[in-house]
Amino acid sequence: MMAIQILQVGLKNRSVLNPILERAREDLSSTLNLVKPIIEDVKNRGNMALREYTSKFDNVAPDSFVLDLSRFNPKIDSKLEQALKKAAENIKAFHQIQIPEDKEIIVHGNRLGIRHTPVESVSVYAPGGKALYPSTILMGVIPAKLAGVKNIQIVTPPQQGFLPDGLIAAAKIAGADRVILAGGAQGIAAVSYGTETIPASEFVIGPGSKFVTAAKVFLSGQGVIGIDSPAGPSEVLVIADDSANPIWVASDLLSQAEHGDDSVAILCTDSLSFAEKVRVEVERALLERPKRGEMKRKSIEDYGRIFVFPNLEECFAFSNLFAPEHLEIQTRNFKEDLKRVRHAGSVFLGNYSPVAMGDYISGTNHILPTAGAARIYSSLGVSTFLKKVTWQEVSKESLEDLYPHVKALSEFEGLDEEHGTSVKIRI
Amino acid sequence: MMAIQILQVGLKNRSVLNPILERAREDLSSTLNLVKPIIEDVKNRGNMALREYTSKFDNVAPDSFVLDLSRFNPKIDSKLEQALKKAAENIKAFHQIQIPEDKEIIVHGNRLGIRHTPVESVSVYAPGGKALYPSTILMGVIPAKLAGVKNIQIVTPPQQGFLPDGLIAAAKIAGADRVILAGGAQGIAAVSYGTETIPASEFVIGPGSKFVTAAKVFLSGQGVIGIDSPAGPSEVLVIADDSANPIWVASDLLSQAEHGDDSVAILCTDSLSFAEKVRVEVERALLERPKRGEMKRKSIEDYGRIFVFPNLEECFAFSNLFAPEHLEIQTRNFKEDLKRVRHAGSVFLGNYSPVAMGDYISGTNHILPTAGAARIYSSLGVSTFLKKVTWQEVSKESLEDLYPHVKALSEFEGLDEEHGTSVKIRI
Repeated sequence: MMAIQILQVGLKNRSVLNPILERAREDLSSTLNLVKPIIEDVKNRGNMALREYTSKFDNVAPDSFVLDLSRFNPKIDSKLEQALKKAAENIKAFHQIQIPEDKEIIVHGNRLGIRHTPVESVSVYAPGGKALYPSTILMGVIPAKLAGVKNIQIVTPPQQGFLPDGLIAAAKIAGADRVILAGGAQGIAAVSYGTETIPASEFVIGPGSKFVTAAKVFLSGQGVIGIDSPAGPSEVLVIADDSANPIWVASDLLSQAEHGDDSVAILCTDSLSFAEKVRVEVERALLERPKRGEMKRKSIEDYGRIFVFPNLEECFAFSNLFAPEHLEIQTRNFKEDLKRVRHAGSVFLGNYSPVAMGDYISGTNHILPTAGAARIYSSLGVSTFLKKVTWQEVSKESLEDLYPHVKALSEFEGLDEEHGTSVKIRI
Repeated sequence: MMAIQILQVGLKNRSVLNPILERAREDLSSTLNLVKPIIEDVKNRGNMALREYTSKFDNVAPDSFVLDLSRFNPKIDSKLEQALKKAAENIKAFHQIQIPEDKEIIVHGNRLGIRHTPVESVSVYAPGGKALYPSTILMGVIPAKLAGVKNIQIVTPPQQGFLPDGLIAAAKIAGADRVILAGGAQGIAAVSYGTETIPASEFVIGPGSKFVTAAKVFLSGQGVIGIDSPAGPSEVLVIADDSANPIWVASDLLSQAEHGDDSVAILCTDSLSFAEKVRVEVERALLERPKRGEMKRKSIEDYGRIFVFPNLEECFAFSNLFAPEHLEIQTRNFKEDLKRVRHAGSVFLGNYSPVAMGDYISGTNHILPTAGAARIYSSLGVSTFLKKVTWQEVSKESLEDLYPHVKALSEFEGLDEEHGTSVKIRI
């Protein structure tokens, strides 16, 4: 049996499509119950509690939780260094266009405007489990820097009590101030409340384990921190017609499967013969590239699908319902087809735009909404860290002119005594 | 004893300032436990459950929960109608400047861009307890319309089983599609999951009781809906020097107190003699304007304060720590002083800009972050309902050129087998 299923469907075939649409929307409630006491404990006992949880969960006891980056001089391979610098340069270039302009307008004689001000402090979580992600450090820190955030720290599990040079280099290139060596819910609690030595952050972002996600969601619900959209398993949805290259599409699906055995990789196409070619290429690649092979096969079997719809229109309609984290469009008219996209994290157009380009080097952000959250939330960007503060300067003439309206509305709402008066006495 | 306290403080006087800074950050946990079973029940049993809770909590049983606005022709006072239309016009004018432009840039030979797409459906909660708020309907619906949201409904308690004409008129003027007659946690659940007759919304916004807030926070944490910043008691912080008018400032403080007995009204000034004048005027106004008198006095006694700082700089530093929902600046140099503001919901500049102007008519939005959330979150606006979808079109040449960097980074992260390959095979 081949690893990936082909299903011929129509958009109305909801019994087939719904399980995929609903996918791994993780229920955090049991994890929330596990992390709450840890968070409470770190809030109350600070470093003492943090040290105990770090010994217990990470099997290490770092001398200090706080690494001042100015005191480190990492030695890394020059190719890696060049890659990190090139990635940082491209990320900066793309995120610079996201810096918004302040605005001002006269409405009925009054000056109204919007100013953008950054949050004061941000922690970027960089996961440390299955793999190391210097790229995530760049993706989290650079937009915050561009937004004007003054105080930026990395928070990451302590590995063997020290930090690999590749991560330190990424943190320095990105422009972070320091690294906090703490992971899991205890790490999130430490940077949210602060401890004797760890500065508190108002915003905590970046992907992590379910413990990290649960801690972020809990603390955000309590009003302690702001967070990015909670991260679930990574996903790609590819829309391709028979002009696409089946070998490349197969490779893109497997590239997503490489992240973990719950990663989602879906191809939507209007061509059954193309679908069959991709299925063969997925199989061939699984045999030819055995690294992480079991995980990739399991991921593709459980969460990989090829849907053959009657036409591309239904492919796009399904994609908008699915709201994928990554959407690849490999069709003849990909430039036009971009306009059909209403809900997606980031879109990769044409045959030369595999997701890996955005993951690492092109300049777009790879911290993206998963599990359908792209119907509501955006990619991480400069505006994640900026607030719009509105303001107004009312003129005496307009105040007089508009007072009858304030009177009518405040009377209807039963707030005329003071709201109405505060305008009336100025006339 | 006069109602409002004067305290001479410095910014370092944290034992005096902290209780005010920490203010009514409501602990939602006990309310969350109350609303969870209601939400679950409405999710599972739909209209049947909604009808039971509405009978129980609102003492009415509306014939239908759904009012199709096209079938109503409200009769309202012409002054109220003109006021609603003028308010809508000004809100539109100010929010129109918030519609962002799509962007595009070439980075290292690749086309990268951002498109803005609206969420599909929004519910605007309009509270129905102490007072009726047609103004909140305008503030919630108009930005969503401008963002391009296709499906907008009001959700509001059923009053006596029908809706006052003033609210229907506001909903029609704002451009909502329908009104859902349901309040509290059961109303929020109904519009979040949908029922047999009520369409589900992806985004639910607007202020409400603690049950409404708890239901929104819970459903947002579950990934079911997006929400605005959770609403707590209303607040004003006034920064004034002795150029300001003590009668007007006193009226602005009381205008906030008129919202409820937990409303927060604070004056920060550098002049003790000005502080004393304001205190006298607050007292005089409480005697002269008795409507809602007990509530206003209690609010001013419990949550009203006049802080006399050594200088205006400390007033602004305190304000940035406090991050008020509404900030009035009535100083000689108010235009310059706006630049000192880092954290606030909306700012009111000069002597002729009482908060009531923004509440009703000037055009800025009155759905604002409270309880210090302005350190992290923005005023409601067009961008609340828009997502930034990033995209890229990589060229074959750039792919080749950038491949060595993808190789170096993916090897370090242990993802070279597929991530690296997906780029390499395209060369």
